Amino acid sequence: MEQILDFCSIDPAARIGRNVQFGSYVRVYGNVEIADDCQIGDFSVIGQPSIRKDSKPLRLGAGAKLRSHAVLYEGSDIGPGMETGHHVVIREGAMIGENLRLGNFSDIEGACRIGDFCRMHSYAHVGRGAVIGDFVWLFSLTTLMNDPLPPSHLADPVVIGDMATICVNAQLMPGARIGRGAMIASGAVARGEIPPGVVITGPEGDIAGAVRFVMHMESRTRHPWHRHFADAYPEHARARIAALGAEIDAEAAAAATSL
Amino acid sequence: MEQILDFCSIDPAARIGRNVQFGSYVRVYGNVEIADDCQIGDFSVIGQPSIRKDSKPLRLGAGAKLRSHAVLYEGSDIGPGMETGHHVVIREGAMIGENLRLGNFSDIEGACRIGDFCRMHSYAHVGRGAVIGDFVWLFSLTTLMNDPLPPSHLADPVVIGDMATICVNAQLMPGARIGRGAMIASGAVARGEIPPGVVITGPEGDIAGAVRFVMHMESRTRHPWHRHFADAYPEHARARIAALGAEIDAEAAAAATSL
Amino acid sequence: MEQILDFCSIDPAARIGRNVQFGSYVRVYGNVEIADDCQIGDFSVIGQPSIRKDSKPLRLGAGAKLRSHAVLYEGSDIGPGMETGHHVVIREGAMIGENLRLGNFSDIEGACRIGDFCRMHSYAHVGRGAVIGDFVWLFSLTTLMNDPLPPSHLADPVVIGDMATICVNAQLMPGARIGRGAMIASGAVARGEIPPGVVITGPEGDIAGAVRFVMHMESRTRHPWHRHFADAYPEHARARIAALGAEIDAEAAAAATSL
Repeated sequence: MEQILDFCSIDPAARIGRNVQFGSYVRVYGNVEIADDCQIGDFSVIGQPSIRKDSKPLRLGAGAKLRSHAVLYEGSDIGPGMETGHHVVIREGAMIGENLRLGNFSDIEGACRIGDFCRMHSYAHVGRGAVIGDFVWLFSLTTLMNDPLPPSHLADPVVIGDMATICVNAQLMPGARIGRGAMIASGAVARGEIPPGVVITGPEGDIAGAVRFVMHMESRTRHPWHRHFADAYPEHARARIAALGAEIDAEAAAAATSL
Repeated sequence: MEQILDFCSIDPAARIGRNVQFGSYVRVYGNVEIADDCQIGDFSVIGQPSIRKDSKPLRLGAGAKLRSHAVLYEGSDIGPGMETGHHVVIREGAMIGENLRLGNFSDIEGACRIGDFCRMHSYAHVGRGAVIGDFVWLFSLTTLMNDPLPPSHLADPVVIGDMATICVNAQLMPGARIGRGAMIASGAVARGEIPPGVVITGPEGDIAGAVRFVMHMESRTRHPWHRHFADAYPEHARARIAALGAEIDAEAAAAATSL
Repeated sequence: MEQILDFCSIDPAARIGRNVQFGSYVRVYGNVEIADDCQIGDFSVIGQPSIRKDSKPLRLGAGAKLRSHAVLYEGSDIGPGMETGHHVVIREGAMIGENLRLGNFSDIEGACRIGDFCRMHSYAHVGRGAVIGDFVWLFSLTTLMNDPLPPSHLADPVVIGDMATICVNAQLMPGARIGRGAMIASGAVARGEIPPGVVITGPEGDIAGAVRFVMHMESRTRHPWHRHFADAYPEHARARIAALGAEIDAEAAAAATSL
């Protein structure tokens, strides 16, 4: 049974699953399919109409938890278990896997693919056309660009491999291809082809080394993160983290010998 | 005839034109003039009172399309055809020309001038006092500073010439004067007087060359943008783009010989 | 007497002081204590429930002025006289002193301490665990990181001394300790122990000199700011600014001789 609080405005055409909870002041447009067990925060807009005429519905997977002031467009397909902070925007045409977490003020510009179990922090900006693998981290203020000659009609979006980590304030230039398990350090600029498992630093995007040599000295904790951080994910993800991690370790080692 | 949806709170003193459409949950204060054919998104605040006692009304030009969660103060004057993303703020004293487009989470701090046909992307921040010409681009995370000795009572705002392009994450230092048609590359820092038509790169703000030599190799598309991108503007702007573009080309060429 | 405007949703369990003014569309949860003379802007969420089960109430000190679209969690304690811009988020466990000013789109991640009379501009991001002194300035886009090996379970938050100034787009790396009265220049990256009263510049975080030698040439205005900017604070803060400023001047001078 759905629970609808004060002052909601819900189009009767919207298809709404069981046990969906709406906060106060939620606007739900008609071209929407909300699966079971979702929670929709106060002051949110669900199914914002796109300027495209033929838009598919917004499909919001089961168990989503949207915090207040969210805006989700019609025409996106979002896997189960998404959890967002406040004031997020997801535009039309975003194909999103399972269990995304999205920080406050994040901006997913749409027409993009985001894999399973990705994590994005505050003010993350995913430009149109980006392709993001599984278990990818985008920390605060990271920007994924897409126009190689701004402003132009050209589009050369970013591709990010599984388990890559993009640190605070990193910029991914148009056309950047980030290898699996790579880390773009905070404030770094990444261009072109980035090999798997490397660390990129600085405004010139230099290869500073391999992720597997990165260690926190005091605690002796070492990268890659899948060795010490799998417990931060839902239990059913952990076997996949181990298998994918081993695969990426091998890929990174092979790439290192050819550098 | 205006269309008012659920749960709107509209001060009867507000002057509202014909064919204005309000979303749900729109608050309109009294000191407001909304011209014909505007669309106001859900959860927006129109005419937010300023702390200044003698504020002029907010004048919102015809055909504006404000998406949800916008905040517009009284005391600003906005030309026709503005279109915004979600969660934008425009404070008091902004004098804005025709056809501004403003990205999600943009922050116009007020007491500024913005010309016609400007384009700003997500998280653009226009500090108080800025003067921006026509056809200017501010990409995501660009910041226009104004305090040369922060914090202080001094103010030395940024001035940006027509058709300049400020790329992602560029910083314009207090007092920067950006010449017409110049491009500040992503992540660059611009200080002082920037000649027309140059490209500025890096944290030191070096002149890397002339915009007219910038080319996208695969497509052979060349800058300046007014040659290949005029069709992205409304038809009535195109003659003006051609004339202004030619004028700026000549100015940039003259400046180049004196560098 | 409280004034409640249209369409508010206020839990009767909330404790609300005298002369509190609510805008339209304000949601107040039950675990909240709002002191006298506060103003709560339109579309705000006050006392957002935390995922922690045993959360203390949100305590909002007297005279707060929250502008629209604010989100304040339960479990934070906010001193008197806070003033915010629009679209701010303050999560649970933030212990905040007197007279904080918070810019549009600021993001206080919680479990942090912020002293008295601090000033933060747009898109300031305070990571969990940060400890911030009195009279600290965070300008736009400053980020206080906390994870030294992202992503990990480690936490090494930033500590900022009294009267420090963090300029636009500066990044404070995990574990950075910013000395009292220091200035981190715009775009700079600060790591480790920063001595009191120094200026840090650039991506390498070099010590460029002492704050007391920073001067605005045209106006001959000199740093540190407590000499020329105390009048920007409430009158009752000024004796404290003078005393604290003198103390920090001495500390900076002593540190300079040992550099």
